[in-house]
Amino acid sequence: MKVITAISNMQKQMLTDKAQCKSIGFVPTMGFLHDGHASLLRKARAENDLVVLSIFVNPLQFGPNEDLDAYPRDFDRDNQLAEQLGTDYIFAPSADEMYPGPPSVVVKTTARTEVLCGKSRPGHFDGVATVLTKLFNIVRPDRVYFGMKDAQQVAVVEGLLADFHFPIELVAGETVREPDGLAKSSRNVYLLPNERSEAAFIYKALRLAEQMAAAGEKSAAKIQAAVETVIRENTTGQIDYLEILTYPDLEQVGELKGKIIVAAAVRFQKARLIDNIILTIE
Amino acid sequence: MKVITAISNMQKQMLTDKAQCKSIGFVPTMGFLHDGHASLLRKARAENDLVVLSIFVNPLQFGPNEDLDAYPRDFDRDNQLAEQLGTDYIFAPSADEMYPGPPSVVVKTTARTEVLCGKSRPGHFDGVATVLTKLFNIVRPDRVYFGMKDAQQVAVVEGLLADFHFPIELVAGETVREPDGLAKSSRNVYLLPNERSEAAFIYKALRLAEQMAAAGEKSAAKIQAAVETVIRENTTGQIDYLEILTYPDLEQVGELKGKIIVAAAVRFQKARLIDNIILTIE
Repeated sequence: MKVITAISNMQKQMLTDKAQCKSIGFVPTMGFLHDGHASLLRKARAENDLVVLSIFVNPLQFGPNEDLDAYPRDFDRDNQLAEQLGTDYIFAPSADEMYPGPPSVVVKTTARTEVLCGKSRPGHFDGVATVLTKLFNIVRPDRVYFGMKDAQQVAVVEGLLADFHFPIELVAGETVREPDGLAKSSRNVYLLPNERSEAAFIYKALRLAEQMAAAGEKSAAKIQAAVETVIRENTTGQIDYLEILTYPDLEQVGELKGKIIVAAAVRFQKARLIDNIILTIE
Repeated sequence: MKVITAISNMQKQMLTDKAQCKSIGFVPTMGFLHDGHASLLRKARAENDLVVLSIFVNPLQFGPNEDLDAYPRDFDRDNQLAEQLGTDYIFAPSADEMYPGPPSVVVKTTARTEVLCGKSRPGHFDGVATVLTKLFNIVRPDRVYFGMKDAQQVAVVEGLLADFHFPIELVAGETVREPDGLAKSSRNVYLLPNERSEAAFIYKALRLAEQMAAAGEKSAAKIQAAVETVIRENTTGQIDYLEILTYPDLEQVGELKGKIIVAAAVRFQKARLIDNIILTIE
């Protein structure tokens, strides 16, 4: 496994590998890897000749009052895990390498971002789309891997790939969970002990939505109210949003129909957690 | 020569050619080709295994009161000229093919566009940067060719390639001129007969700037006044802008130093013409 920090070296390496007809699977991350990332790396390993992991805590996707500096980091552990999983390259540029000065161009999202995290975190998805445009051109992968915990990110990336015609296949991996249902997340380390046990109720609440829908409930408002009640009564967190939308277009729905996302963000003292469930209504 | 209109076919063709290690030279245009385009196609022909010409009048780079519908078109003549010059592919998508619906993402320029055409044509360079991002991913060229008549466009493309790490070399071709000095432009056909002869004074005025600088004049204000006077006294056109800036960063200058652009836009009855001259001051 090679660790590369310079953009020009990474791009040269990838162009050389492409010229030898190697297929490239790419897992972009902000590091502090957990089982969710590991499952994406395994999937990438199985489906490609070469696997590239990027580790870059992207300042552009953090708001001024967000946890950029506090975002957890452990490069040595990430390195070890990546190697165990058969990763070929880690691309780990510095912020100065990625943003050496004021940019001439950025990507601006114009759909799918007025709701959910896009609403609570203005500019977040512009930052995501900008850094991915850069990374896609540096790594030039055949397949890119994202976890469905960040379902809105997956929807935005789908739009980015389609609109800009990146010849890259998007592979969305299922959310990996703790035994009690909590979605794995790098930010889970910042939960206080009581918050950690409460946090399992986010997924329990989402499962209630699934059960209500399976039992024939079609009203988004009724399901939303029930889900909110479970979270409110069982956690000390603040609900940042709880929305029921079409997926992947993320449009409002009154009556459940087709592919639907039930998505929640809950703010605890030092961690804001997100989770979601996708329902397909006949 | 093949004419391709579908994005998916163009991209498939290019990926196939790239897999055979062919180098690709790309000349993006809005069609109605003139000698300026021809010189870029010749350059591309000399420097690459394959030459791709795109012809697409990009609605995104026209403002609401601009000449999108009136922009001159002659596909048959373009086709013939391209074939004579040894072009391998013409990519000529429809507007619906390039913009099938509301976009999810666009490129936004954040530098080099508050002056010159960027100031007179708000959103113009966002449209240019967006369509080029799309075209670069469809065509995946090794080299891309632009004419220096559109010097600000060259500066914006340089920023786009650098910031988004497109592994593409930018080749800027010298402005091709009529015998009297008028820069070749698709829009010249819209000049009235008297305007056509007056229009030569734009370049004469720019040459005066060059002569003044060569004679030791360092004051941007003095040169600007002299150039404006020549245009004003010899044409019926309205000066849209006349600016003296650093190149390619396009920043204001008081005293001439380093690489400098003197750029003008003049509005005639049915055509707005631009031209520029680059000076290198010791």
